[in-house]
Amino acid sequence: MNKHRLKMILEQVQDGHLDVNDACRMFETLPFEDLGFAKLDTHRAVRDNFPEVVFCEGKTVEQIVTIFQRLYLENDLVIGTRVESKVYAAVREQIPEIQYQEPAGVLYARRTPAVPFGAATVISAGTADLPVAEEAAVCLEIMGVKVGRVYDVGVAGIHRLLNEVQTINQSQVVIVVAGMEGALASVVGGLTKRPVIAVPTSVGYGASFNGLAALLTMLNSCAGGVGVVNIDNGYGAAALAVAILRTFNG
Amino acid sequence: MNKHRLKMILEQVQDGHLDVNDACRMFETLPFEDLGFAKLDTHRAVRDNFPEVVFCEGKTVEQIVTIFQRLYLENDLVIGTRVESKVYAAVREQIPEIQYQEPAGVLYARRTPAVPFGAATVISAGTADLPVAEEAAVCLEIMGVKVGRVYDVGVAGIHRLLNEVQTINQSQVVIVVAGMEGALASVVGGLTKRPVIAVPTSVGYGASFNGLAALLTMLNSCAGGVGVVNIDNGYGAAALAVAILRTFNG
Amino acid sequence: MNKHRLKMILEQVQDGHLDVNDACRMFETLPFEDLGFAKLDTHRAVRDNFPEVVFCEGKTVEQIVTIFQRLYLENDLVIGTRVESKVYAAVREQIPEIQYQEPAGVLYARRTPAVPFGAATVISAGTADLPVAEEAAVCLEIMGVKVGRVYDVGVAGIHRLLNEVQTINQSQVVIVVAGMEGALASVVGGLTKRPVIAVPTSVGYGASFNGLAALLTMLNSCAGGVGVVNIDNGYGAAALAVAILRTFNG
Amino acid sequence: MNKHRLKMILEQVQDGHLDVNDACRMFETLPFEDLGFAKLDTHRAVRDNFPEVVFCEGKTVEQIVTIFQRLYLENDLVIGTRVESKVYAAVREQIPEIQYQEPAGVLYARRTPAVPFGAATVISAGTADLPVAEEAAVCLEIMGVKVGRVYDVGVAGIHRLLNEVQTINQSQVVIVVAGMEGALASVVGGLTKRPVIAVPTSVGYGASFNGLAALLTMLNSCAGGVGVVNIDNGYGAAALAVAILRTFNG
Amino acid sequence: MNKHRLKMILEQVQDGHLDVNDACRMFETLPFEDLGFAKLDTHRAVRDNFPEVVFCEGKTVEQIVTIFQRLYLENDLVIGTRVESKVYAAVREQIPEIQYQEPAGVLYARRTPAVPFGAATVISAGTADLPVAEEAAVCLEIMGVKVGRVYDVGVAGIHRLLNEVQTINQSQVVIVVAGMEGALASVVGGLTKRPVIAVPTSVGYGASFNGLAALLTMLNSCAGGVGVVNIDNGYGAAALAVAILRTFNG
Amino acid sequence: MNKHRLKMILEQVQDGHLDVNDACRMFETLPFEDLGFAKLDTHRAVRDNFPEVVFCEGKTVEQIVTIFQRLYLENDLVIGTRVESKVYAAVREQIPEIQYQEPAGVLYARRTPAVPFGAATVISAGTADLPVAEEAAVCLEIMGVKVGRVYDVGVAGIHRLLNEVQTINQSQVVIVVAGMEGALASVVGGLTKRPVIAVPTSVGYGASFNGLAALLTMLNSCAGGVGVVNIDNGYGAAALAVAILRTFNG
Amino acid sequence: MNKHRLKMILEQVQDGHLDVNDACRMFETLPFEDLGFAKLDTHRAVRDNFPEVVFCEGKTVEQIVTIFQRLYLENDLVIGTRVESKVYAAVREQIPEIQYQEPAGVLYARRTPAVPFGAATVISAGTADLPVAEEAAVCLEIMGVKVGRVYDVGVAGIHRLLNEVQTINQSQVVIVVAGMEGALASVVGGLTKRPVIAVPTSVGYGASFNGLAALLTMLNSCAGGVGVVNIDNGYGAAALAVAILRTFNG
Amino acid sequence: MNKHRLKMILEQVQDGHLDVNDACRMFETLPFEDLGFAKLDTHRAVRDNFPEVVFCEGKTVEQIVTIFQRLYLENDLVIGTRVESKVYAAVREQIPEIQYQEPAGVLYARRTPAVPFGAATVISAGTADLPVAEEAAVCLEIMGVKVGRVYDVGVAGIHRLLNEVQTINQSQVVIVVAGMEGALASVVGGLTKRPVIAVPTSVGYGASFNGLAALLTMLNSCAGGVGVVNIDNGYGAAALAVAILRTFNG
Repeated sequence: MNKHRLKMILEQVQDGHLDVNDACRMFETLPFEDLGFAKLDTHRAVRDNFPEVVFCEGKTVEQIVTIFQRLYLENDLVIGTRVESKVYAAVREQIPEIQYQEPAGVLYARRTPAVPFGAATVISAGTADLPVAEEAAVCLEIMGVKVGRVYDVGVAGIHRLLNEVQTINQSQVVIVVAGMEGALASVVGGLTKRPVIAVPTSVGYGASFNGLAALLTMLNSCAGGVGVVNIDNGYGAAALAVAILRTFNG
Repeated sequence: MNKHRLKMILEQVQDGHLDVNDACRMFETLPFEDLGFAKLDTHRAVRDNFPEVVFCEGKTVEQIVTIFQRLYLENDLVIGTRVESKVYAAVREQIPEIQYQEPAGVLYARRTPAVPFGAATVISAGTADLPVAEEAAVCLEIMGVKVGRVYDVGVAGIHRLLNEVQTINQSQVVIVVAGMEGALASVVGGLTKRPVIAVPTSVGYGASFNGLAALLTMLNSCAGGVGVVNIDNGYGAAALAVAILRTFNG
Repeated sequence: MNKHRLKMILEQVQDGHLDVNDACRMFETLPFEDLGFAKLDTHRAVRDNFPEVVFCEGKTVEQIVTIFQRLYLENDLVIGTRVESKVYAAVREQIPEIQYQEPAGVLYARRTPAVPFGAATVISAGTADLPVAEEAAVCLEIMGVKVGRVYDVGVAGIHRLLNEVQTINQSQVVIVVAGMEGALASVVGGLTKRPVIAVPTSVGYGASFNGLAALLTMLNSCAGGVGVVNIDNGYGAAALAVAILRTFNG
Repeated sequence: MNKHRLKMILEQVQDGHLDVNDACRMFETLPFEDLGFAKLDTHRAVRDNFPEVVFCEGKTVEQIVTIFQRLYLENDLVIGTRVESKVYAAVREQIPEIQYQEPAGVLYARRTPAVPFGAATVISAGTADLPVAEEAAVCLEIMGVKVGRVYDVGVAGIHRLLNEVQTINQSQVVIVVAGMEGALASVVGGLTKRPVIAVPTSVGYGASFNGLAALLTMLNSCAGGVGVVNIDNGYGAAALAVAILRTFNG
Repeated sequence: MNKHRLKMILEQVQDGHLDVNDACRMFETLPFEDLGFAKLDTHRAVRDNFPEVVFCEGKTVEQIVTIFQRLYLENDLVIGTRVESKVYAAVREQIPEIQYQEPAGVLYARRTPAVPFGAATVISAGTADLPVAEEAAVCLEIMGVKVGRVYDVGVAGIHRLLNEVQTINQSQVVIVVAGMEGALASVVGGLTKRPVIAVPTSVGYGASFNGLAALLTMLNSCAGGVGVVNIDNGYGAAALAVAILRTFNG
Repeated sequence: MNKHRLKMILEQVQDGHLDVNDACRMFETLPFEDLGFAKLDTHRAVRDNFPEVVFCEGKTVEQIVTIFQRLYLENDLVIGTRVESKVYAAVREQIPEIQYQEPAGVLYARRTPAVPFGAATVISAGTADLPVAEEAAVCLEIMGVKVGRVYDVGVAGIHRLLNEVQTINQSQVVIVVAGMEGALASVVGGLTKRPVIAVPTSVGYGASFNGLAALLTMLNSCAGGVGVVNIDNGYGAAALAVAILRTFNG
Repeated sequence: MNKHRLKMILEQVQDGHLDVNDACRMFETLPFEDLGFAKLDTHRAVRDNFPEVVFCEGKTVEQIVTIFQRLYLENDLVIGTRVESKVYAAVREQIPEIQYQEPAGVLYARRTPAVPFGAATVISAGTADLPVAEEAAVCLEIMGVKVGRVYDVGVAGIHRLLNEVQTINQSQVVIVVAGMEGALASVVGGLTKRPVIAVPTSVGYGASFNGLAALLTMLNSCAGGVGVVNIDNGYGAAALAVAILRTFNG
Repeated sequence: MNKHRLKMILEQVQDGHLDVNDACRMFETLPFEDLGFAKLDTHRAVRDNFPEVVFCEGKTVEQIVTIFQRLYLENDLVIGTRVESKVYAAVREQIPEIQYQEPAGVLYARRTPAVPFGAATVISAGTADLPVAEEAAVCLEIMGVKVGRVYDVGVAGIHRLLNEVQTINQSQVVIVVAGMEGALASVVGGLTKRPVIAVPTSVGYGASFNGLAALLTMLNSCAGGVGVVNIDNGYGAAALAVAILRTFNG
């Protein structure tokens, strides 16, 4: 059927009954050949907001070096998350311009500078949540987003957070990173009209069940405008923030 | 000591200063003999801070009427929790002085007025948490505790709570009742030095898992001074509050 | 201390040593008196993107009628979710202009028309997910967002979804509603650069555990740019979408 | 009773009233003596489709060497799964013809070549799922099944999978290996009429709960024709595939 | 790019440099235009082994009647599962040839008789598992599969099962339906070389957790060749069995 | 009764037939007066069926040596469970007669030989369950129970178990040790009238969830006469078996 | 093979080389023909300690009447559990000698009186646990076991339990029935040397999770000699108790 | 608006229409400027009952040394929990007066002695619960609370606990620390009128699920007056106890 229709169109082109441009437009209206589809075939960087990001936890130093070399051949920007500091030296021998952000555990190399766009605030509850918060913040900055950091403003001392409300509201997207009971997302959600991306962390012990408590808290947030990503997924929060910011910042 | 007292009694019997029957009765008031133990045998009202409290959910109207009649014969104060309004009329026919607090679902009768002692604040997050909050508040009031109510101060609108901090700190014990994500307990715990009793409620849906989310939140509270009772257990919070207040208010 | 500082400033104003405008600026730099804070005191509609939304499940017809009457006195727009059709007639007797969207279960009344802004697509997997999808769609439309609906495009017949990629990419925010295994969120996340708000539904049986399976699927999405809200929380997805759209369509 | 009946038959044989062959047939119709039962007593290789497969995780190098030696004395084919590379050298000293497939972690020795039968496709979502996918693929190949590999076709880039539909449909059984959200099984199930064996993997973090998320996703698959095996159980998928293929490929 | 290539091909056709048939073949080698893809566009009955099956639980009598009427206009075979007996009469008024299998809760109508193919055995543990077992059996029979039923052979009386081993092995696929502890799947898996499809049921109480215990049992089966479907999903087992049988029985 | 005895003693004191000091001593031998109570005050070996058993997992070699020395001073029999082999040498330097059973991980020393009583069978499913099975078996033997071992009779090869039914029925108590899906307990429960003590083990992976699957299976056993102990708790099974055997074997 | 051996034996009998009795004995030593096996073929009452017990929850009055009539034709004793009182009247019309124990919900009929044997104590924590405790007690009494009841001795008032220790120790088996936190099993286990069968009940609310809390408590009991059955499974406890008592009381 | 009102007040002060003291009072009645709020700005030691307590688990020796040095510059009292012994030496080199309590794992330094107030009893079930019990006890003692220790009184030997009832009742707050089944909290709650703070520990194995069993037990306690803190959270129990004791002991 589809094949039949295809042949008919081609024969009309051959016979001169159909203009090439009109034929093109017809193909676009055929299922799977439309513009939305064309994107499927192009490279990931076109379809996604982020380049390929390598999740390095559980990979050996050698594996990471190899992956980075190969990816950097084909791309202008390569990013790795959950990278330990010892990996940095090894990769640098191969890619001298590689950069490493320690608390974030983010390793990246780039050939072209980022084009600035958008503004986000990353808020974290406790000092132990810092690596996840920084993973989000650094990934955003690599992509060109201006990041405001509001750290160590856990709800047990809520006045520290209240002092930062104005700062928070001046950004376009807010990322809240919290472990233990994760109540910070609800409180921030109640203080701002901005979209809030909540990242539960595995910080805590006992009945925190490795982040489950914070995850459930955030999903049940009584404040509106809160979306949740996976436990400890700082990069995932950045990816959602970039999706939001890219849509509106051109 | 105990041994000493035993010997004294026996010597009085030996000397004929004490009748065997009187000695028997004395032993009966000792039972399990030492002071720590004596309490075990006396009635519940002596050992516990609360009289027998009837959990009425799942009992028929007839069963509740019968239990109240029997208990009120033996006690000056009878309390029932989770009582539906239709039970009230039925019990009143038998016990005219019975009283019913509707949102709390608490039914009680008393012969002697409560002796006032202590002050507590009951804080609730949303209107749907009201029945549990009132169960706690009414149970406290029946026991003689002065109760301040700070309702509908969920963390999504935290300014409402902040306005009440002074009131909260003027009481001796704070009960926080919250469903959904239960973040209120942490926020209150961060605002007061008073002991906080947290009651998760089953209010919510989806990933609240009937109160599990609020329960975990409260157990993982990043604020100090928070103890947690069972889901929807307003009476349990009151019982702990009374235990605290009785210890120090004579 | 704070009080002391306050008095000092006031005395300087009284003495003419301090200009009123300078004093204002000083208050702004004091904690809690800044602009961000001022918002805390204003009404919900100023701080939030949505007006007060009444969650009607579990409330009686009488209760809902009363709440709607009271809220509509004070607000220009009142919205109720999870409303059964029988409630509609009862509320209409009091508020003739009340409107009801049946599959969505949304009841609302308004005095001023919505100001159009933004465009969202709501995608749902199966017909049983419709009520949740419609709750999201109708809430968006009430707020003034243009909504495209792409329904019944479950991953078991993925070609139906592929035909809609272009439509999806023309909106600014995408909401994906799916129960059972909830795989649709990942697939959509892989097909678009737009921010994706995933709503797991309780549709399913057995090991769907009332939406837990879909929830976990969405949280673990291998595609970037996906944020998750609570199970069956169509309104929550709309609230997050409005937060995103308001930020940029200001 | 049974004993009584037994004696009766034997006496009839003794008396010549019953032929030995007829008596045999009678025994076969007695419970437990039928052909189905006979199999119970024969060796595993007759009853099962697979030879004894040694699960090596948690065993020492010495233990594995010993087990392989003993089993290879009695069998023509010995297979071990979850074998680390260091074990290979140690076993090879004892069994020179031993073979090792590294990414799969499968160690095996055979005396007779496999008889080819059947065709399966093994599909995996991400590179981290490779060891499990290869465990399935290598186990199938050892048994004589022709295996097509379609790797790294996660649903976040669904066009890669769509390109392989024809290949998939040319095999007789499809194994889908996926961690994180495990959505691939549903998508493949919707693209093929072939039986799909889904293997959730423990790949992921946070709310993947070591494979639970993928497991639930696969059990709730909205696509028909999907059966699920245990988390990371590549061999189990191969065993089910062989059971299917053996039934029909003689 | 894709568009560019398209235009180039069309211009070559227009210019006569490219034959229509050669152009067709080129399109086929373009992604998404191959035969595998063509299937995506055809109707469900071509791609799936089963026709549309209506899950009737939770739908009103009126809704089911409407759905059956519409589907039966477009299809020769319509099937509904989880149908209560009262629905049967209502549908029969509209579709006189409708048939209903009571313990299975399966309602169906057909215009053309089923073409027989394949043989399956359905085994169930207890009488309470019967509805699920019958849902599987009846769905198979409607599709044309010959079904052997081995019911009430729970492992607590394993001799009953042992008597049926021969029968079981004469079929091509085995479905095992069991609730409570679900041990039957492992036992059957150990007795047969046939592929075993395990269906946990929600039969049980207490720590059966609505089928979770049986589900976990089956997933951890120590016997090889077992694939598991969702709790109570008799139809799902039939769908997988049909996928297997169709692949090999033409 | 108790009262009666009290009165008798008091009357004897009154009459001068009983010295006050002797009466005191009599009261002391009563404590909590009746015989059942007296046991409370005596040593553990009197009240319990087992001597103090040291759970050694997580303790250092030094700690275990110290504990064994102290306990062996006061007791004739000392037992430790979950003991690694390296501990054996260290303890033997202090207690030369110490004995160690390796697969069981049980370390013990005794001064008086066990008095034989009772007979138990320990059945295990797979070789990986051996340590737990042996912990149960060795603990029983140390106490004097005759133990029959029926190992490696998993339900995947049920004929091996069927061959042992007679042996099993000749003992007085049966312990079934199984991991993975734990189906063996149900099968054994269906084959014997003896009390069955089921021990789930943490053997397995993935959805065995460290023994949870086997635990649930055993709790939901469709066979009667099965009691369950904690996961991997071989000693606990032995303790229950000894409680049963002691009651009846005097 | 087996068949071959069978034939050989039969031929030897035919030839007179083998005595019928010797042949019988040989068959007994063949796998599956031994005495243990013979039992498999006999009726349930021979193999099990209990007759068929009908679990009536979820069955209609008509179904129960029919099942009781059929079973009572073939057996001398029929028992049903979880029977509502309305069923009693209906069954009595068919079986006049039927008896019903209300709090237990046990319905039974018998032709021959029970032969007394053994003694058990049933202990329950709260009044709400009574139905489960009575199910256990009545089932035991029907089988002929002498039952002591020690009810309402929850650990919150432990002195009530301490008074009953002597009574408890005079029985041979102890059943402990408790909901909420289920701590009673540990306390009883610490007070007696008798085997303790623990029955968690679903009594409680909130974090009792329908009996899960009590179940886990009992499985983790720090006291030895405790075996656990399923939640609310009073009959199961009785079945285990009877298995123990039968073994030793002939 | 708020700004406007602020300006108005200041202008009235400037104009002399408003007294400075009256203005101060007006500010106090403005939201957030009241006394309750002032506290928000003061240091943690004013608002909290405890100084900053450092959770040291997971921190390196270097990090802990640095944190202690910095905190001890600003505070008179610094406390660390979950500290390993090797950290002690390192910190002592910098802070010679540092003290370390080994079983508790608590490290602290102070310049001013604690002011004694209040009395608490810490009760623990088993020796393995000691570290958590000591964490609670030592933290209390550092704050100035008199601590009575009642250790190793698990419910399996309840007489040991009964002997200590008098001691327990002489304190003002009771902390109960128990792992495994955690039944001790209920038993203590039934023996005393004092407030009971229950600390579940992760001591146990198998179905203790790292403290979940004990946690659920304590939350479901049938005894009144029990509040629960997180698993292993000895410090949290101390914090709640101090909150209670501070409220009443000035």
